[in-house]
Amino acid sequence: MGPHPAVAAIRLAVRRVLHDILNDDHTPSGLGRQASGERTHRTAERSPSPLVLVACSGGADSMALASALAFEAPRLGVRAGGVTVDHGLQPGSGLRADEVALRLQELGLDPVECVAVTVGRDGGPEAAARDARYAALDAVAERHGATAILLGHTRDDQAETVLLGLARGSGIRSLSGMAAVSGTGGRYRRPFLALDRQTARKACMAQSLPVWDDPHNTDPAYTRSRLRHEGLPALEKALGKGVVEALARTAQLSRDDADALDAWASQAEASVRDATGLLECAKLYALPPAVRRRILRRAAIEAGAPAGSLFARHIEEVDRLITGWRGQGAINLPGKVVAQRQGGRLVIRQG
Amino acid sequence: MGPHPAVAAIRLAVRRVLHDILNDDHTPSGLGRQASGERTHRTAERSPSPLVLVACSGGADSMALASALAFEAPRLGVRAGGVTVDHGLQPGSGLRADEVALRLQELGLDPVECVAVTVGRDGGPEAAARDARYAALDAVAERHGATAILLGHTRDDQAETVLLGLARGSGIRSLSGMAAVSGTGGRYRRPFLALDRQTARKACMAQSLPVWDDPHNTDPAYTRSRLRHEGLPALEKALGKGVVEALARTAQLSRDDADALDAWASQAEASVRDATGLLECAKLYALPPAVRRRILRRAAIEAGAPAGSLFARHIEEVDRLITGWRGQGAINLPGKVVAQRQGGRLVIRQG
Repeated sequence: MGPHPAVAAIRLAVRRVLHDILNDDHTPSGLGRQASGERTHRTAERSPSPLVLVACSGGADSMALASALAFEAPRLGVRAGGVTVDHGLQPGSGLRADEVALRLQELGLDPVECVAVTVGRDGGPEAAARDARYAALDAVAERHGATAILLGHTRDDQAETVLLGLARGSGIRSLSGMAAVSGTGGRYRRPFLALDRQTARKACMAQSLPVWDDPHNTDPAYTRSRLRHEGLPALEKALGKGVVEALARTAQLSRDDADALDAWASQAEASVRDATGLLECAKLYALPPAVRRRILRRAAIEAGAPAGSLFARHIEEVDRLITGWRGQGAINLPGKVVAQRQGGRLVIRQG
Repeated sequence: MGPHPAVAAIRLAVRRVLHDILNDDHTPSGLGRQASGERTHRTAERSPSPLVLVACSGGADSMALASALAFEAPRLGVRAGGVTVDHGLQPGSGLRADEVALRLQELGLDPVECVAVTVGRDGGPEAAARDARYAALDAVAERHGATAILLGHTRDDQAETVLLGLARGSGIRSLSGMAAVSGTGGRYRRPFLALDRQTARKACMAQSLPVWDDPHNTDPAYTRSRLRHEGLPALEKALGKGVVEALARTAQLSRDDADALDAWASQAEASVRDATGLLECAKLYALPPAVRRRILRRAAIEAGAPAGSLFARHIEEVDRLITGWRGQGAINLPGKVVAQRQGGRLVIRQG
């Protein structure tokens, strides 16, 4: 008799990603074969078989992921370890993290690390916790020379991320959700991105794995929690059951589209600069708006505008210096960057 | 004392669009100056001053639009007329349509037409009603030689349309909502696309215009109605008040992005065909996925696949003939179209 279907599904998802890691054929865009080859080479110097870590909160998604990694890794000659991060945001979180670490050891993972972090306040509570978590995971990966860190994000998380991006209204890049492969050298992998949350939970039950439900996940003070428990269910009620899948597919399509347009903008940028490197308005005007606005955005960021504070409306205003020129004055952008039109050229610099 | 702020807002929106129509500077993409010039010329032969019609259901949005057109048109030397469509879907709809026509006449619009249509069943009740309505509006515009037809869609309608597109999960074109300018020769114009529904309603109240609330708009049998009364409010509660604006901005950005990528695909297509016109797999492989998939989609539609039944998963499967070739057989697509790889070429044709 084979394993429970949910267990088979999580194992298959992890097996595929381990194959990708071993074959190195899923490098993120921007990293070609060469960079990947280097990475493999470095890893080979450090240890006989590659180490893959799982980041585990103790929740159903990452516990399922840990169990599948523990099962699949030895069969592919991969060493499997685990990390749990204590965010220190709830009383008793330290004990909780120790308990998760113990469970990871019981699954046969080695090494297992329990890392305590201090969560700052930058960008709101969710962003600050995330920043602290990834910094800690990066440090653990470096320390152990890990080839990859697996993250338990599911298709449901992806759908939520797309809706959060939609609420920013800043274009298709923010609709593209989480990447299956991300981070320096493609370190982070998300094997469950096409799997629903329910499958992960069933796999834990089928394997009698105790799971911990983070109270933050149901706390209406958090945007994602409100989205999960109220926003998405209401949307499903109005639009039908396929919404989560549609959102996840939108993420993938948007990511490919955004990548292609970024590549175009990057290529076009060189052709719209004059000999002194200034942007020529007439040449910018001839480009499709989607490409032109990406070039303007890049130029503003290059001049020192912080990407996170640069909104679509800022870029639209700069764009009007090109498409709706009527002698308007300098445009102030975040980060004290100023954009102005001078003699048919666009000058964007810190004022 | 000037008019009520809401009345000023709807008039400004209409004035801008009338200016665009007179200056012909808002032609939809794909139609250049030449086509626009032709249209103006034809109109000039028929009548001394251009005629602009408003499509009016009697609801707050289109009544506000009609009132603003009646006010602004004479000031710009434009003739203003109105059309109301009787869909025959509710008892008494004929009387209702006559009443709306009367109100349009009272506003000073001339000509005013009341057209009865027969709604079919193709594509569901909402799509069938829409098809019948636009066919009737087109016919009226032709009959009177109208330069444009104004439609009362607001920013809220746009947000709903984006969410409906999102639920299809078929990419950024379906996220791009309604265009400000659409139809043959840019006939349809939507002056209120950046205005919220509340403003239209306030403008009607301020002008003591009676409005009719279509019971379909609150009937939970309709997807859009569920979205309006349950889905969007829940999303706003989870994500904050800016959601409608963010969705409308997403529509505009997605439209520009989709236009640019379509243009790229259209240009790239010629370069990936061999001397006999077949698609070369090696050349397709070298393109960004977003561009390649658009070329594949176009080729499938050209071969006879109905655009509406061709989903992202179909194109993904065809794409794997190029990116994941392992000798797989022919792929069946809607409309009896078959895609297969033969000797490094992709053959897509009706089977």
